Amino acid sequence: MPGTGKPTLAVVGATGAVGSVLLRTLSHHADVWGEIRLLASPRTAGRRLTVRGEECEVLALSEAHEEHLAGVDLALFLVPEAVAARWAPIAAAKGAVVVDTSAAFRGDSDVPLVVPEINAHAARVRPRGIVASPGCATLTLVVAAGALHAEYGLDELVVTVQQAASGAGRAGTGALREQLALVTGSELGNHPGDVRRAVGDHTGPFPGPLALNVLPWSGAPAADGWSSEELAVREEIRKILDLPRLRVTATCVRVPVVTGHSASVHARFERPVTVGRAHEILATSPGVVLYDDPAAGDYPTPADVVGTDPTWVGRVRRSPDDERALEFFACADNLRKGAALNAVQIAEHIAAELSGPSGTSDR
Amino acid sequence: MPGTGKPTLAVVGATGAVGSVLLRTLSHHADVWGEIRLLASPRTAGRRLTVRGEECEVLALSEAHEEHLAGVDLALFLVPEAVAARWAPIAAAKGAVVVDTSAAFRGDSDVPLVVPEINAHAARVRPRGIVASPGCATLTLVVAAGALHAEYGLDELVVTVQQAASGAGRAGTGALREQLALVTGSELGNHPGDVRRAVGDHTGPFPGPLALNVLPWSGAPAADGWSSEELAVREEIRKILDLPRLRVTATCVRVPVVTGHSASVHARFERPVTVGRAHEILATSPGVVLYDDPAAGDYPTPADVVGTDPTWVGRVRRSPDDERALEFFACADNLRKGAALNAVQIAEHIAAELSGPSGTSDR
Ligand SMILES: NC(=O)c1ccc[n+]([C@@H]2O[C@H](COP(=O)([O-])OP(=O)(O)OC[C@H]3O[C@@H](n4cnc5c(N)ncnc54)[C@H](OP(=O)(O)O)[C@@H]3O)[C@@H](O)[C@H]2O)c1
Ligand SMILES: NC(=O)c1ccc[n+]([C@@H]2O[C@H](COP(=O)([O-])OP(=O)(O)OC[C@H]3O[C@@H](n4cnc5c(N)ncnc54)[C@H](OP(=O)(O)O)[C@@H]3O)[C@@H](O)[C@H]2O)c1
Repeated sequence: MPGTGKPTLAVVGATGAVGSVLLRTLSHHADVWGEIRLLASPRTAGRRLTVRGEECEVLALSEAHEEHLAGVDLALFLVPEAVAARWAPIAAAKGAVVVDTSAAFRGDSDVPLVVPEINAHAARVRPRGIVASPGCATLTLVVAAGALHAEYGLDELVVTVQQAASGAGRAGTGALREQLALVTGSELGNHPGDVRRAVGDHTGPFPGPLALNVLPWSGAPAADGWSSEELAVREEIRKILDLPRLRVTATCVRVPVVTGHSASVHARFERPVTVGRAHEILATSPGVVLYDDPAAGDYPTPADVVGTDPTWVGRVRRSPDDERALEFFACADNLRKGAALNAVQIAEHIAAELSGPSGTSDR
Repeated sequence: MPGTGKPTLAVVGATGAVGSVLLRTLSHHADVWGEIRLLASPRTAGRRLTVRGEECEVLALSEAHEEHLAGVDLALFLVPEAVAARWAPIAAAKGAVVVDTSAAFRGDSDVPLVVPEINAHAARVRPRGIVASPGCATLTLVVAAGALHAEYGLDELVVTVQQAASGAGRAGTGALREQLALVTGSELGNHPGDVRRAVGDHTGPFPGPLALNVLPWSGAPAADGWSSEELAVREEIRKILDLPRLRVTATCVRVPVVTGHSASVHARFERPVTVGRAHEILATSPGVVLYDDPAAGDYPTPADVVGTDPTWVGRVRRSPDDERALEFFACADNLRKGAALNAVQIAEHIAAELSGPSGTSDR
């Protein structure tokens, strides 16, 4: 609370895929928090988890115990969209600033959508007391795209995002591991539908078999054949970069990777580009690591960047037919920069603001 | 031979990944061939393989036995590039028409590059006696892109091709299966480099671990950060569609799928497009199956289309920001349409020509 010591933090959804990574992130970051309170569904209330080296009991988020949200300065919401839609406004009404990682508020014009490397300032104006963190597909590439935009001016993005299983939470990781056990050691993958038959109904949150496969679908059906996830990438990038008319087309595919999203990006700019200057920009941008020497085998892959914080970028090329277009390949850990880390970064900015001398912004 | 009975066919590389599928294809197609002679390296000479229901001994391709190429009317080459570069001209000099699936001759202006659904006519003019079949990355999407081009006029393609392990032959499939055995049943895939360490030097023909990973690289280093495979997609599509100045940017990534390439395609045309008309075009194009109803779970995936002949297309959408751009997702079996089937289709066209009444073209 402003001036009165370190702020109280609530982690809502502490037991999930993002929640687990978030607790580890808190343990490794400078300790700016007073009390840290962990919440999850009544199903797992009572479980003990470790954060900052201390055991902490998980409390239930439930109507019977709304007091668990009382006295919270900042609440990180790492729960399914419907749960966030219901509970984030309640937490805000009780006085907490909410940082939400779900899709519930990302499109709300009264809710800033924040990637601290790009628009940290936007987190200071939050009419609903809520700040949203973008989806993991967007976060795979937006830090790198934003850095290049600052120099060259973005005109169009065409992206294919390869999403890992854990993007669908614990259930996603579990389903992939289960499916792999069903197909490994067999000759499956050579006949139409043999993987689908072997996987049977062990598809988990996915619309089909993911082991030994690529699923060109993630999210829910939206208008005109698009998936909600693909349209979200477009809307989120436009909002974060404050380019409401930017042309963006995204294809989201799910790949049999545990954690680590990757994106193949075609970026067209207003001005001519060079690979040399693009390298300089990426190499010096906060949150980005340039790893680009294919002849030496240096390009990022999900299995190599999982468990790390930055967005890794390689395969930077200029289109042979267009001096204003760059291709690049970006990888980021969907549970870290794609969710927990970005949320913690936002929370730390707000904590500094709350305990800072000015502390004058809307909540 | 013209007028004198059915042509003699040589299958060079009969023991490989493409070769095995090709023998099955021959067994299922109308039997237009006289003798079928199987060849491979001296390593596997003597092995017996089945084609058209009959066992057949594999002969060695070697200097000591050039007579194995004598009397051949049509030779299908399904061998590594360097082997094709050396032996295809020898087979041609002995009188065979060569259909080559390697990259050795695809860029040669005296060698037609043929996809029968698009440019079957081109196979009739073959100054070197050689016809090339495109790479499997190109063949993932070119039939569908060509069909749309015929109606709308292509202006630009931006594609990401997800390549399966068997695109790198028997060695590729073997390496993926071996790697999966090393990572399945573990908790690998959550820490930086843990998959790489578990896979160790079992990378096979790949530049890194493929299990639980995506490798943004295939082919050899080419100029300006491109891979040879990516530049080949550009050159091959331009040549097949006879659009020497078409703008094409490709990204080729390797995914942990046994067989079945897929491609995320952004196609921009000279004229405005509609999804309805694009559906009609794709649904009625030879060699294409339209499978596009995401709300019902209908879109092609590698695991579902492996072992089938056509190019499957789904996820057709119009860009929300550009009335001239379509996105689609194409899948094809890289060993069938991507290699063996396309080669057999070319060979059958040439067989008809050789045994036909006119039979007057250059070899
Ligand atoms: N996974 C990613 O890569 C990623 C990236 C960006 C954003 N996100 C977003 O982050 C959020 C969490 O995702 P996740 O992947 O961590 O999902 P998850 O692994 O399924 O975890 C869900 C979490 O929400 C809790 N929860 C579920 N229902 C609840 C309820 N009724 N009341 C209170 N807590 C409840 C669960 O608690 P129990 O243990 O009690 O069930 C668990 O802690 C989602 O909105 C997701 O869209 C995820
Ligand atoms: N795999 C695909 O998806 C695909 C798609 C399009 C095009 N292609 C092209 O098709 C060709 C074959 O690929 P693949 O995937 O089938 O490779 P593969 O599985 O490695 O098979 C290679 C074949 O070439 C034979 N061979 C190797 N060295 C030889 C030599 N010195 N003399 C005679 N034969 C020799 C091998 O015979 P042994 O058994 O005796 O070693 C085997 O039959 C390559 O040029 C490839 O680029 C492949």
